[in-house]
Amino acid sequence: MTATSRIASEQMLFIDGVSGKLGGFLADQRDMMATVSPDVEPLIGSISNLVTGGKRLRALMCYWGWRGAGGVADDEDIVTAGCALELFQAAALIHDDIIDRSDTRRGGPSVHKRFSQLHELNGWALDSGRFGDAAAILTGDLCLSFSEESFTEIGPRAASGSTARRIFNVMRAEVMAGQYLDILEEVAGPVRDRAGSVDRAKSIIRYKSAKYSMEHPLALGGALAGAPADLLEAYSEFSLPLGEAFQLRDDVLGVFGDPETTGKPAGDDLREGKRTVLVGFAINQAVAAEADYVDRILGNPDLGPDDVASIRSIIVQCGALDATESLIADLSNKAFEALERLPLQEVPLMALRQLAEAAVSRAS
Amino acid sequence: MTATSRIASEQMLFIDGVSGKLGGFLADQRDMMATVSPDVEPLIGSISNLVTGGKRLRALMCYWGWRGAGGVADDEDIVTAGCALELFQAAALIHDDIIDRSDTRRGGPSVHKRFSQLHELNGWALDSGRFGDAAAILTGDLCLSFSEESFTEIGPRAASGSTARRIFNVMRAEVMAGQYLDILEEVAGPVRDRAGSVDRAKSIIRYKSAKYSMEHPLALGGALAGAPADLLEAYSEFSLPLGEAFQLRDDVLGVFGDPETTGKPAGDDLREGKRTVLVGFAINQAVAAEADYVDRILGNPDLGPDDVASIRSIIVQCGALDATESLIADLSNKAFEALERLPLQEVPLMALRQLAEAAVSRAS
Repeated sequence: MTATSRIASEQMLFIDGVSGKLGGFLADQRDMMATVSPDVEPLIGSISNLVTGGKRLRALMCYWGWRGAGGVADDEDIVTAGCALELFQAAALIHDDIIDRSDTRRGGPSVHKRFSQLHELNGWALDSGRFGDAAAILTGDLCLSFSEESFTEIGPRAASGSTARRIFNVMRAEVMAGQYLDILEEVAGPVRDRAGSVDRAKSIIRYKSAKYSMEHPLALGGALAGAPADLLEAYSEFSLPLGEAFQLRDDVLGVFGDPETTGKPAGDDLREGKRTVLVGFAINQAVAAEADYVDRILGNPDLGPDDVASIRSIIVQCGALDATESLIADLSNKAFEALERLPLQEVPLMALRQLAEAAVSRAS
Repeated sequence: MTATSRIASEQMLFIDGVSGKLGGFLADQRDMMATVSPDVEPLIGSISNLVTGGKRLRALMCYWGWRGAGGVADDEDIVTAGCALELFQAAALIHDDIIDRSDTRRGGPSVHKRFSQLHELNGWALDSGRFGDAAAILTGDLCLSFSEESFTEIGPRAASGSTARRIFNVMRAEVMAGQYLDILEEVAGPVRDRAGSVDRAKSIIRYKSAKYSMEHPLALGGALAGAPADLLEAYSEFSLPLGEAFQLRDDVLGVFGDPETTGKPAGDDLREGKRTVLVGFAINQAVAAEADYVDRILGNPDLGPDDVASIRSIIVQCGALDATESLIADLSNKAFEALERLPLQEVPLMALRQLAEAAVSRAS
């Protein structure tokens, strides 16, 4: 078997394992919940729907971190860790969608929207939107608990005091901190100093995205396999810049992406008022009147196609897009250089290279 | 030392231990968060504020469950379990207050209100209410993670597969299910069959309150001390009816309580549209026109003092208050009978009796 087909077959086996285990875990939870009341089913149904499919990016980073540190291919513990990461991500998405008022997720209604639709369909009383938000807050909480329950099932390798447990704890706290910095910048950004906006945006993507989606999952897999500290450090030198490049690409797509490919309406990030690195460059590099215009119009939910086109044009003309692309290139180079220094065997090394290439070159 | 003073001194020592450990835990988290950004401080500040004070009811149930099952008085593990329960309760309160739109908590602003005030104070952009809700969702998530982190620190006694871990998992899932049933009944209650409303309300208080506040904490303490299954069962026979009586008392106070004593505006539960057992009795026992009036007006945020007085009068006249009081008396009797059958030593038995008496006779 070539290394490439070995990677593909290992990944398929692992992803099937994660999907199967998630299915079994949620079936058990559904049974438990049914003893409470059949009315509770939509909570489990929403979680189940959300963890079906998806790119399983974090689970895969975790898997190759494990394999790179000498973990064997068909071990139950790494599958369980993958489930815990997927459940955590589902919980984060449920609450994120409430916070961002996103009514769609992966082409279907988001969880709060599902519940408000359930409300309308049944002709229930009072406000459907409020009910949807409340139900989704509770569903996200339940999913967060499931994630933890699943992580604990790993047993001794993830017990109190272990490196893996520490990483899991830090991962959770940091991503919540990063999300707070993100919503804070949306409201505080317009009245804070413009000169600091790029650094603040960089801090947001580091904690909200790069550490959460790349650095911590990779380290977690490594730690579960007993990786020494210097390997975990070498992992970070690769995964942190990779995660930053990944998120910067996401930010560019959020403004310039093709709705057909990204699945999100054009300019959605602008309407939500996301103050990304791209936007930070723009308000610092554009002429004053244009910078003021961008500053003022960000977060306006009624932003029309003309405004989106104007902002795009400002971002291009002032060099903000070039500056961001150059940052992406630098970070990618840094990540790939660190990747080549990793003391890994051929298969995990090549697998991480594939994941990294997909991350920085994607169009959706 | 008399048993009474022994109880008082043990409880004080335990509560001091929990407060001290919570303080240390949050100080460490504050340090960790400071490495992310000083902007994140209000999340820790909000949690810290919320876990300072409070009745520590769940922690005390857990403590006496532990002592009753032979756990020693000054053990670090039971203090850690108390911290985990207090952090979980804080997380639940933070999200509850968003769901119920409660702007006050223990005489101060609730967490979402604190964040919206922070927004207004700083003259930030966009909507302060939305920012407050979003920040409080994230703070609650962080606090939920802290609860789990703390629970895991107990180590082997709370490891995967242990009875204590199973109880902690079930407790979290059931309370979230119960909260969902609660918000569901607010909206679905008016269009569902009236005959079933009392049973549905009973199910809500069982899962949202009785199991969560009484049964599971007591069982958790017992399980951590290695209680056999028959003791845990005997614990439940006492704690479940006690918890139900406790919540029914709370429901009565929510409608008839003195705002001076309860700290909540008169009729707040009615304004929120809570469909309690008391309300269930009322809409089944009142004459049709009055039942319809109650059904229609519940959940109206603009409910004035006249409406509150009318609903109170309907509840009294139709016998709903009597029916509820009689249910409280039955459940209390059941709880106290089960208490006397508990095979416990004098001190834990008397301590549980004190907690039970405080729970059912309270006025706030």
